[in-house]
This record gives sequence, C-alpha cells and structure tokens, in this order.
Amino acid sequence: MPRIIVQKYGGTSVGTTDKIKNVAKRIKTYHDRGDHVVVVVSAMGHTTDELIELADKLNSNPPRREMDMLLSTGEQVSVSLLAIALDSIGVPARSFTGSQVKMMTDGNFSNAKIEMIDRTRIDEALGENKVAIVAGFQGIDKEGNITTLGRGGSDTSAVAIAATLGANECEIYTDVDGVFTADPNKVNGAKMHERITYDEMLELASLGAGVLHSRSVELAKNYDVVIHVRSSFKDIPGTLVVSEEKLMEHIRVSGVTIKNEEARVTIPDVPDKPGIAAELFGALAKADVIVDVIVQSSPSNGKNTISFTISRKSVKEALPLLEKFVEANKTGKIELNEKIAIISAVGVGMKSHVGVAAQMFKALADNNINIEMITTSEIKISCVIPEAQGKSALKAIHDEFI
Amino acid sequence: MPRIIVQKYGGTSVGTTDKIKNVAKRIKTYHDRGDHVVVVVSAMGHTTDELIELADKLNSNPPRREMDMLLSTGEQVSVSLLAIALDSIGVPARSFTGSQVKMMTDGNFSNAKIEMIDRTRIDEALGENKVAIVAGFQGIDKEGNITTLGRGGSDTSAVAIAATLGANECEIYTDVDGVFTADPNKVNGAKMHERITYDEMLELASLGAGVLHSRSVELAKNYDVVIHVRSSFKDIPGTLVVSEEKLMEHIRVSGVTIKNEEARVTIPDVPDKPGIAAELFGALAKADVIVDVIVQSSPSNGKNTISFTISRKSVKEALPLLEKFVEANKTGKIELNEKIAIISAVGVGMKSHVGVAAQMFKALADNNINIEMITTSEIKISCVIPEAQGKSALKAIHDEFI
Repeated sequence: MPRIIVQKYGGTSVGTTDKIKNVAKRIKTYHDRGDHVVVVVSAMGHTTDELIELADKLNSNPPRREMDMLLSTGEQVSVSLLAIALDSIGVPARSFTGSQVKMMTDGNFSNAKIEMIDRTRIDEALGENKVAIVAGFQGIDKEGNITTLGRGGSDTSAVAIAATLGANECEIYTDVDGVFTADPNKVNGAKMHERITYDEMLELASLGAGVLHSRSVELAKNYDVVIHVRSSFKDIPGTLVVSEEKLMEHIRVSGVTIKNEEARVTIPDVPDKPGIAAELFGALAKADVIVDVIVQSSPSNGKNTISFTISRKSVKEALPLLEKFVEANKTGKIELNEKIAIISAVGVGMKSHVGVAAQMFKALADNNINIEMITTSEIKISCVIPEAQGKSALKAIHDEFI
Repeated sequence: MPRIIVQKYGGTSVGTTDKIKNVAKRIKTYHDRGDHVVVVVSAMGHTTDELIELADKLNSNPPRREMDMLLSTGEQVSVSLLAIALDSIGVPARSFTGSQVKMMTDGNFSNAKIEMIDRTRIDEALGENKVAIVAGFQGIDKEGNITTLGRGGSDTSAVAIAATLGANECEIYTDVDGVFTADPNKVNGAKMHERITYDEMLELASLGAGVLHSRSVELAKNYDVVIHVRSSFKDIPGTLVVSEEKLMEHIRVSGVTIKNEEARVTIPDVPDKPGIAAELFGALAKADVIVDVIVQSSPSNGKNTISFTISRKSVKEALPLLEKFVEANKTGKIELNEKIAIISAVGVGMKSHVGVAAQMFKALADNNINIEMITTSEIKISCVIPEAQGKSALKAIHDEFI
C-alpha cells in the first residue's frame, strides 16, 4: 500500500504563481516516489482580505451565507491553479471544492464545524494515480449551501481529511520553520522543537504562537493524526505534533509566550452570592468580549475581588457593561490597568516535575519584575506583568528553563 | 400569480461595486412591485481574462477541467456580491452556483451544453419572496465536475432558466441600447429595432453584431422565450427578440453588418470528384480554422474553382494544410487575398419580398464597389468586397434599405 500523505499549504505559500510552481515541485517529489498525495490549499495571499473589502463597500453587515459564498472562491482559485501547475510538470492532478468532496458541515455560516467527509472522490483520484487537491476552509451544509470554517480553517480541513483517510501524516506547510520554544524574533536562543504534544501546542496556539489553528490541533488529538509543521520555503525537518505517549521524555517547559495589548480589570467588593460571576462574564461573552485570565480572591466579609484580563481593544466595548454590573450589584469602583502583558510557560512535563511555578516566579523576581496576577493549569503557568517588562520577562523565563 | 422575470447582467454591468449597486437598485424596482425576479450574472469586468492570465503563467496548455474550475469563480464572486448589495437596500436575495441549481451539462469542459436545470432551489427562494441570483456561464456534469458554457455563455444560462421557469420575459442587460439596423458607431442613421425575429438575430449575431450569444438565441427560439435586449445604464425600452409570428409585418432588411479582418482563398482546377470538398474543409475544421463564405463554381472540364473566406489571423495555420491539399490533388495554385471584408444584409422579409438581392448589388455597383463573391440564404445576402470599400458599402446598403 502506498503511503497517504496529506499536505496543507497556507496563503503565503501559494501567494504568487512562482510560489505555486515551487509547491508543485515539492508535491512532485512525493508523487514521484509513489506516495498518494492529498493537498489542501488556502486562498492566495491577500485574496480573502480583498474579497472582504469588496463586500464592505456594498454592505457594512453582509449576510453571512453570502460572505461564505464569496470567500470560498479564493480557495477554489488556488486549487485549480495548483492542478494546472502540476499538469505542466507532468503530475496528473484533480482539484475539488468542499462541495465536491462532500465536506459536510453544520449550517453555522462563517464558523461552521465539520461533521463528515465523503472520501469517494478523493479515493478515485488517488486510484488513478492523481494528486487530489482539496479547497481548504470550505464545506457545505445539508441544504448544499457553501459554508466556511472561519479564519485558519484550512488547517482544520487538512487534519479532518487526514483523519478520514487514515493518512500517515498531515504536513502543514507554513512560513515559519517549525514550533519554537519562544518567538525567535523576540528571544535569542529560541529553539525549534522536534516534537511537541497536542496539549502543549494547544496552549501555545491559544497564547498566540500562531502556527496552527487550535481547532485543527484538537481534531488531530481526537483522531490521533500526527501533524508535521514545516517550512514551505526551506527543506528542514520542522516539528511533529504528537500524542503524549509518543514523547519519550517530557521536558518541563516546552514554550514561553507573551501576549501584549492586554488590559486588566479589577472589581473589588463584589457580593459573594451564587451566579454573580456568571452574570458578569455572561454579559461580556454576549458582547463577544474575550476574557483570558480570571482570578477571584477568597471571600472576606461576604465580598470578593474579581480580576480578569481582556484585550485592550475591547475595553471600550466592555466598560459600559461593567459599569452596569457595578451599579446593579453595588460593588467597589472598577480599576483598569491598560499596560499589562501576560507571560506564560507551557510544558507537559510540569505535570510530573514539581517546583516549575516557584522557579518561574523566582526568575521574574530576580529580574525585578512584579507579578500582578497568576493562574495555572496542569501544563501552563501564566503571570500578568507590567507590559514594559515583557521583553525582559520573556528572556528571563526562557533562559531559566530552555 | 406574480410575473416571473429573468434578468441577465453582463460583465460590464457589474464591473465595479458602484455598478453592482445600480444593478441592485434596478432589481429592487421589480421586486417592490411584486415580480418574482431571477437574476443571472457574469463575472465582473475583466475577471475572466485575469484568471486566464494567471493560468497561462503556469501552463501554456492547461487542462480544461481545471480551467473551468478556475473561471467559474468569477461568476460566484458576482452573485454573492449582488446578493450582499441587495441585502443592504432591504431586498432579500439568495445566490446560487451552477452546481447548487443543478445546471446539468454534458462533460465537454469549456464548451459544455446544458441538458437540464432543477428549478427546486430557485422556486424555494422565490417562494420566500427572495430574489434568486444564479451564476451564469457555469454548470456541472454528471460526476459533479464544474463545467463552463464557453464565452458569452451567461446569455445561454439566462435563457435556459427562463425556459425552465416559463418566465414571461428574459431581459438581457448589456452596454448597448438594443439591436440596431447597423453598428451605430459605423453608420449614421442606424436605427434601433423595437422587435426582431430569432432568425434575424441569429444571422446578425454570427455576423459579429455581438449583442447576444448565438446559442442563447437558438435556445430562446426552441423554447419560444422572448428575449429583451436592454441597456443596463439607461432606462430605454430596448429590443424584443421574438418569433416570426409575433411580428406584424416583416421588413425586408432588418440589419446590415460588416466583418473585417477576413481573407479570401481561391483554389482553381480542383478535380470534380465526390468527397473532395469534405477533404478540404474537414482538414481546416480539424485545425479549428473557421470557414465562413464558401463558393464553388459549376464544374467545367471536370474541374472546379473553390473559393472561401477565413479569418485573417488563421491564414498562417491554414496555409500548410491547403498546400498539402493542393499537392495531393494536383490543383491550381492557391490565390490568397487578405484585404477583403464581408458585408451582409439580413431580414426575414427577404423571404416574401423579391428583388432584395438585385437592389443590394445595384447599390454596391452605384458606389463603384466590386463584388468578389456572393452567397445567399433565405434571410441573408452576403457579398465579399475589397476591405478598403467596407465603410462606403455599409453606408450604401443601409441607406438603400433603411
């Protein structure tokens, strides 16, 4: 049986016809050695943004069904161009829309979830020794309407196809070399991982490491698909994202990331009554304000202090809601700090290594960095610190552990 | 029962977002008065050419299936943008790809023929008081591959939908005011028809009057769909294309057209044996050389002279084939005249009015224009003349009849 390889190329990897030619050459090396290759492609470069701009000129609040109809053309252009490029170097290929491979999703336009993929047409193409090229990011609902999976959804398409086909590997080609212990642009000595676990990747992705779409990692974890993050421009091994059992040894800290542009909100003297937190965060969620770190002190005299972080650009939207909450519940005055950052260390090894948190706090203290809030999960420790000290905090923690 | 109106807007009518807004406003007036409106749209402006250019950079001979996959995105962009524009002025709309309305075609990529349309989804949209917007130019074959109908195919899509729905009218919006007795840019005093027959329109279209795609006119004739050619920029009545019975009186000449950039080929002393014409024109057809006027003299001494016209740019391709024919059949030397034009007068009235041809030849003679070849059909008379005299010939014949 030939190996089945699923490869996904992002928008920057197919941004020009020359780049498409390079992608075609890379696919050819796999096809020539007898692999069955299924390729998932995103829209070229800034196509999606350009289409959104066109729609914006017509309607400030365009219907989501029609936006999905519009945006899905970007990937359709990429898949056909890639098939055309492959044909010119003698590699038979066949492109497919989401509709053609029955990438069935729910009807939640612009953020649809994949429910099922019909592998028939992909298998047919592979059986004819053709490369199957599938448009990422798009699917269809039960009525045959075109849906899209949300930004970065092509990663999810690729992993879903790999899971459906039982592929040996899902290669995600991108413009970085792999997954690093910290952003190499910010931290000297950041190292590339050979392997990392799904959970670490999930924590890193949600912290803004930005290499993989979180949903794709969750899906890969659920179906045990090995994700291989690689550069589409260099021929280097990259990083494998695997299950915990496939890692021989668990290093304590596999990545350090920082999230800037955050704001901290503190509300003192919140009455300690059931449902009060739900009331507060429910109101924010309704207005699409994403809350990250939440810390609530133990009650004293029937009053709590609740602190949480939101992105700085959502402050304007959040404040009126918070003031309504303050008035309704007669809490203390809102304290707002818009000059904070969140620094996090992630590592599966934390589960079995004690003292990681203490070591992290000490590294920050040694560098005179004040910790304003702390939260921990099984594999992550996050500290809210003054934004001005973000860079030195990143370096201190990276040096300490890696 | 509300009236069902099918409207088709060409690429220039939806070339910019401002133009799309205008189209939306026009549709709104129909929707507001209770009509059921189905709209067929072409790709915006030069989109199709730009996509072809991208493909050309990758492959000088791209697979036709993949070209259809690529080009069909142009119409998909237009239909979604139009739906978005309609929504912004309060008109509910729903866009559909060829696949979604099951515009079933044969599998002849880039020049597919429509076999059937499923009206279910269009009827659903109309039943919900929505404007149904269907991507022109595209369909799907039995396997679900995307096909296209060839250049100008959106006219055909619109007429096919009108026929399927039993629509009262198929309005074709374009950048000209209607169908004229001659090209108004070339002939002073050219008049716009209120009505014209399918057959006249067919002769005029194939002669390069260029308002309607011939296939759409044939289809309209077969299904008795009234085509209404109108300007998308002005609010004027335009021209109705109808069956012969719907014309009260048949004027003798309804249009005069000229085709430039033609070349005449004469082969003398062709042996008068069965199959010789088939041999000659079969070879040209195989090389996709389109032959227009053909004249064969009566045989004398077992030899014929065969003359015909081809487009000037296909001369280079045709010559080697013709020389092969000459050698194989020991005919006389090829005579080539690359400075000719074909002028034609078209009119259903010719059938019942005698002397139209004689009157046309006299008008040319009175202006010292030499006629090199003549062919006639029931409703058309064509003369090959020197290209330099084209303009005065056009004026002479137009003045004579109109």
